[in-house]
Amino acid sequence: MTVRVAVAGARGRMGSQAVAAVEAAADLELVAALGRGDSLDAAAGADVLVDLTVPGSVMANVEGALARGLHVVTGTTGFTPERVAQVEGWAAAAGRNVLIATNFGIGAVLVMQLAAKAARFFESVEVVELHHPGKVDAPSGSAIRTAQLVAAARAEAGLGPSPDATETELPGARGAVVDGIHVHAVRMRGMTAHQEVILGGPGETLTLRDDTYDRSAYMPGLLLGVRQVAQRPGVTVGLEHYLDLD
Amino acid sequence: MTVRVAVAGARGRMGSQAVAAVEAAADLELVAALGRGDSLDAAAGADVLVDLTVPGSVMANVEGALARGLHVVTGTTGFTPERVAQVEGWAAAAGRNVLIATNFGIGAVLVMQLAAKAARFFESVEVVELHHPGKVDAPSGSAIRTAQLVAAARAEAGLGPSPDATETELPGARGAVVDGIHVHAVRMRGMTAHQEVILGGPGETLTLRDDTYDRSAYMPGLLLGVRQVAQRPGVTVGLEHYLDLD
Amino acid sequence: MTVRVAVAGARGRMGSQAVAAVEAAADLELVAALGRGDSLDAAAGADVLVDLTVPGSVMANVEGALARGLHVVTGTTGFTPERVAQVEGWAAAAGRNVLIATNFGIGAVLVMQLAAKAARFFESVEVVELHHPGKVDAPSGSAIRTAQLVAAARAEAGLGPSPDATETELPGARGAVVDGIHVHAVRMRGMTAHQEVILGGPGETLTLRDDTYDRSAYMPGLLLGVRQVAQRPGVTVGLEHYLDLD
Amino acid sequence: MTVRVAVAGARGRMGSQAVAAVEAAADLELVAALGRGDSLDAAAGADVLVDLTVPGSVMANVEGALARGLHVVTGTTGFTPERVAQVEGWAAAAGRNVLIATNFGIGAVLVMQLAAKAARFFESVEVVELHHPGKVDAPSGSAIRTAQLVAAARAEAGLGPSPDATETELPGARGAVVDGIHVHAVRMRGMTAHQEVILGGPGETLTLRDDTYDRSAYMPGLLLGVRQVAQRPGVTVGLEHYLDLD
Repeated sequence: MTVRVAVAGARGRMGSQAVAAVEAAADLELVAALGRGDSLDAAAGADVLVDLTVPGSVMANVEGALARGLHVVTGTTGFTPERVAQVEGWAAAAGRNVLIATNFGIGAVLVMQLAAKAARFFESVEVVELHHPGKVDAPSGSAIRTAQLVAAARAEAGLGPSPDATETELPGARGAVVDGIHVHAVRMRGMTAHQEVILGGPGETLTLRDDTYDRSAYMPGLLLGVRQVAQRPGVTVGLEHYLDLD
Repeated sequence: MTVRVAVAGARGRMGSQAVAAVEAAADLELVAALGRGDSLDAAAGADVLVDLTVPGSVMANVEGALARGLHVVTGTTGFTPERVAQVEGWAAAAGRNVLIATNFGIGAVLVMQLAAKAARFFESVEVVELHHPGKVDAPSGSAIRTAQLVAAARAEAGLGPSPDATETELPGARGAVVDGIHVHAVRMRGMTAHQEVILGGPGETLTLRDDTYDRSAYMPGLLLGVRQVAQRPGVTVGLEHYLDLD
Repeated sequence: MTVRVAVAGARGRMGSQAVAAVEAAADLELVAALGRGDSLDAAAGADVLVDLTVPGSVMANVEGALARGLHVVTGTTGFTPERVAQVEGWAAAAGRNVLIATNFGIGAVLVMQLAAKAARFFESVEVVELHHPGKVDAPSGSAIRTAQLVAAARAEAGLGPSPDATETELPGARGAVVDGIHVHAVRMRGMTAHQEVILGGPGETLTLRDDTYDRSAYMPGLLLGVRQVAQRPGVTVGLEHYLDLD
Repeated sequence: MTVRVAVAGARGRMGSQAVAAVEAAADLELVAALGRGDSLDAAAGADVLVDLTVPGSVMANVEGALARGLHVVTGTTGFTPERVAQVEGWAAAAGRNVLIATNFGIGAVLVMQLAAKAARFFESVEVVELHHPGKVDAPSGSAIRTAQLVAAARAEAGLGPSPDATETELPGARGAVVDGIHVHAVRMRGMTAHQEVILGGPGETLTLRDDTYDRSAYMPGLLLGVRQVAQRPGVTVGLEHYLDLD
């Protein structure tokens, strides 16, 4: 059964890739590619709106799409708890579903989720993220989120801090500390977005690594969302909930 | 509550480490360290028998321990389906539990299990294992098992073969093929036992890697088995079932 | 001092990148961007011709450029020993220099050269190359060349074969064997061109790895050639000779 | 021709391994294994003294060995410039040679030296070292030395700082900065001593990595020193000078 898809933000960098990806998928049909100023009415008849716009546009798009009976998949940023609550109200009223995700890279999401699953079995864990040198924040939001998930899993398992006998440290050598987890940020020409979680116990280490080479990495996760949103009731925040890892 | 432990095969390489590990654990108490020829009667009063012996001894030990009311954790090899069935009969009769595992390395087991979980999301997957040069089989049993698990997960998800346009190949360049999965075996002085599963989709790869540096790597998994066997009814084959990954 | 550059094959994939790279470099000046059928006369006044064409065009371009007093840097394939000899004759007659290189990736070239330097210190060495799944040959030409260089360095140092106790092998598990060196080829969606040389001795391994993410990787090496060709007498085959590693 | 070897510090951890390594080498002959309090006279007749003692003993051993006509290879720490100058005087007077090295791991030394060779070709470079959690200093001395060598090579090539657009940083995320090079220190149960230098340019990264798994890693470098010291005039500081990389 074909899923009919409208894309908002279709002329942006992610949006234009999404349009191409929908067109290339045999089980999806592109019914509208909306740019700034285009009316949502063109999305009528679609099953799913993909919103890849900006925080200033996304809420109107989501509300309008739900009102027109579409499900929504959005990768737009800026979803505060208040915004999510508002979307939940609209979705409930419309009887439609929404996926809100800031990261559609399946590998990137898996590294976080699998690291959290593995964390309780290892004394030590650290996070190393490596990005292009144009990135303005360090560590990456993903690395911070990873550290938080891992820290929560360790706490739940009753693990204390990772062992560390450091007495003499050049400032910064041991990285940033997020919820007790050491996080290191490398900035490297040639790289795009990479993350490694290293976990260690006696005589053994486990390394989980994602290498994201370019924006095409987000398409499989986006299309997975498009294909599944009709079967996932309510508002879901985070692609991981569609991956059925448990 | 302290778990009382007897170790059979206590003078072997794994066994002597197990003895030390049990002694070092605050919540475990070593009640007997049995070598070849020692009577199982010395294990009386223990809660768990750890059997790290040889295929020729293990069945008598398991039967004897169950008959004496102990649970059993064994890393001894040679458990054919027939042997497992026999153990199931003894365990049921005794109302005691058994864990049979050929690999107590938690990281090694996690690489397999997490790779199987991730496999359905990626077009491509290959396995690279790296071992010390004294290893007589290639690829390793773990790599074969990993390929089988990954292949089964791909089949269940309806994925076809990984893409591969190779037309000209030096014999062996693309590795061994196990259930359709390419597996490469590196033999390297300095290494012990390492395995990497690489999964790839458009613009992204996910790498899961275990590095086992020495035999101490098996102790956390062995002790996890010892601590949990009383709560895991029946006969369990494979440490993964104790890791609660789902 | 500015180097004036003409690019032949300027509308090809490598050529168009080369044009952009020359234009972006403060110390280089683009004087001509030649496509198929354009006359070399447009290159008059340039110091260096960059030829990124095809085997059927390159010889005429090289001859013509040398005759016009230009040095030449070419990444075009198909330079047989006979062709190289012919170019040497032309270059000597013209008193100009030529760099012929099939790989302008500095990292890729360094992995080969540094592996050869390191090879005599290690008992074991293997090569793993990883490429996109559209590649038709396995292993890559670079991996074969790497194995040959490493094998030659080992032979010169009097080293025998790498230790390997394999008795039971699934066909292909231990890779292809090139001059006694095991070479493994991984094909993976998401990857472009990657190569790893692993060397091992007692208690230690050394890994040299190049990751080439896209064609822009060839520009620094190409520009290095352009900048240096005037100072490198005669015909040079291989970028490594311009890297002054010894 | 057999080299006759005496080992001082023969009952220490490194020393006992050195004794075993000398005994296992067909071209070396152990003539004395000296512990604390043993007289150097027992080393008479040896060609080379291997000193693996402590800063308080090494100077007397070196002086005594040189006076008795032996060459010296020492891995003992604490060689200040003043001590080296003193050894140079003794060696010149005796007409014998000395190798002073704080790191006999060939792979570890190669990572430093090869990184320095590669550094001038890449815009970006960072160092990641990973050690067991019992290590008291961060980053490791080797990582600091590596950063210094890389920084010197970059300065000589006229390279400015690695690009880095970081505006918002959690303290420590970008590591320690040694001579302008970012250095990250991971502490991980299961690991021993590992170092990775990552270099990056447009579209490409080069990674050089040493994994030291145990103390046996130092034996090949130590024996290389023993075999060559007679042919290397004067006092040499650093194993790299025996590796003939240039």
